[in-house]
Order: sequence, then structure tokens, then C-alpha cells
Amino acid sequence: SLDSIMDTKIKEALTGLAKKISCTSIFSSGRLSSCPAGMVVTSCACGYGCGSWDIQGETTCHCQCSTIDWTTSRCCHLT
Amino acid sequence: SLDSIMDTKIKEALTGLAKKISCTSIFSSGRLSSCPAGMVVTSCACGYGCGSWDIQGETTCHCQCSTIDWTTSRCCHLT
Amino acid sequence: SLDSIMDTKIKEALTGLAKKISCTSIFSSGRLSSCPAGMVVTSCACGYGCGSWDIQGETTCHCQCSTIDWTTSRCCHLT
Repeated sequence: SLDSIMDTKIKEALTGLAKKISCTSIFSSGRLSSCPAGMVVTSCACGYGCGSWDIQGETTCHCQCSTIDWTTSRCCHLT
Repeated sequence: SLDSIMDTKIKEALTGLAKKISCTSIFSSGRLSSCPAGMVVTSCACGYGCGSWDIQGETTCHCQCSTIDWTTSRCCHLT
Repeated sequence: SLDSIMDTKIKEALTGLAKKISCTSIFSSGRLSSCPAGMVVTSCACGYGCGSWDIQGETTCHCQCSTIDWTTSRCCHLT
């Protein structure tokens, strides 16, 4: 029936749509770490117990403490 | 009309779709804290001012500093 | 054809749907920083290297260490 044709079409169109958030961590030595293109930074972690960070240019974690050995950016997007 | 039937069907199908991000914090004593199934970790907070953490097995915050009394995982999903 | 009418309708309906996550950082002096309405807190950063924070009332970062000069909330939503 026309009804079921419509339903099938709509269902197919919706299956391709984003349904969940996926995240990954990017570990880098030094005080900068960037997320891959297409992902956003949701937070940063820093070495030496440092909790002071900021995000530069939308996708790069910058750890601010005087001594930093590593920086991790937490990166997420819709999949 | 057929037109309005189609519009109604599409509208109904879309209402069920995810429209926003929802988050919650899971507080645990010790140096590990996990997000519930279906949620992703967007960041971690740690006791004793510690900003050094990593994420184990996709959903578990691990606070790295030598002395840690609590760990909180920030957990998000689409609703 | 009816087929193409349906396809067009569905496509139009889907274009308006959220397709990605967008985030911003809100920097505030002191130990509290809030996300704008409609956004969720994915994490917090604090001055003085502090990594101990919690989230109050769903949208406000609270930095817990004894000395805090600034607090940043990382805020995200679907666009």
C-alpha cells in the first residue's frame, strides 16, 4: 500500500541519521593536543596533576601549568 | 490530501529522534568512576586537586595522581 | 512521480535536523562558571592547577580547591 511505501521510505531515511555520541582521547607529549577534524573538544587532561587548561582555535587543548609533560584532548562527535 | 498525510508521517517519525545532549556526573570514592551503559565519558574530575586522568575501557575515568580520594566521571548521551 | 515527491519531502525534513555537536568555553573569574541556557557542561577547568570540580544545578562549574582565581565551563549542544 502507499502507506507502507511511505513508512519504508521514512524509515530508510532515518536509519542513516546520527544516533549517538562517540568520543576518543588523543594523547600528546608536551602542552598541546588537538582533536581530529570533525570532532569537538569536550575536555582536556594534563600531566603533573594540572587542572588548568584552555582550548585554542576550537580544537586544541593547551595545558597551562609551568611544568607539563603530556596533554590529552577528549574528542567527541556524532556517529 | 496525500500531501498532508506524507507531512504528518514524516513529522511523527522525526519527533522520536534525538534532539539534545544530556549529561550527568557519577561520583565514586577511590580513583575509578564509570559511566552507565549507553553514555560516553566527556571528562573526569579528581580529588586532591588532581587534573591528570585517563579513560580506561571507553567508559571509566582513572585519576592518576598518587593520592586520590574521589573520582567523578562526566557522562553524556543523546536524548 | 509520487516517489520523487516523497523523497523530496523527506530530504527537506531531514536537512533541518541536528547533525553535529558544537562547543564553547565560558571563562569566569572566581570559582563558578555557568553554561548558557540550552547547553550542557561537558567539563570544567580551574585556575591554580586545580583539577577538583563538580557541577552544580546542571549547568554551573564549581572549582573546589582552596585558592581559585578563575573557572571555565566547557559547554556543548547540538546544532
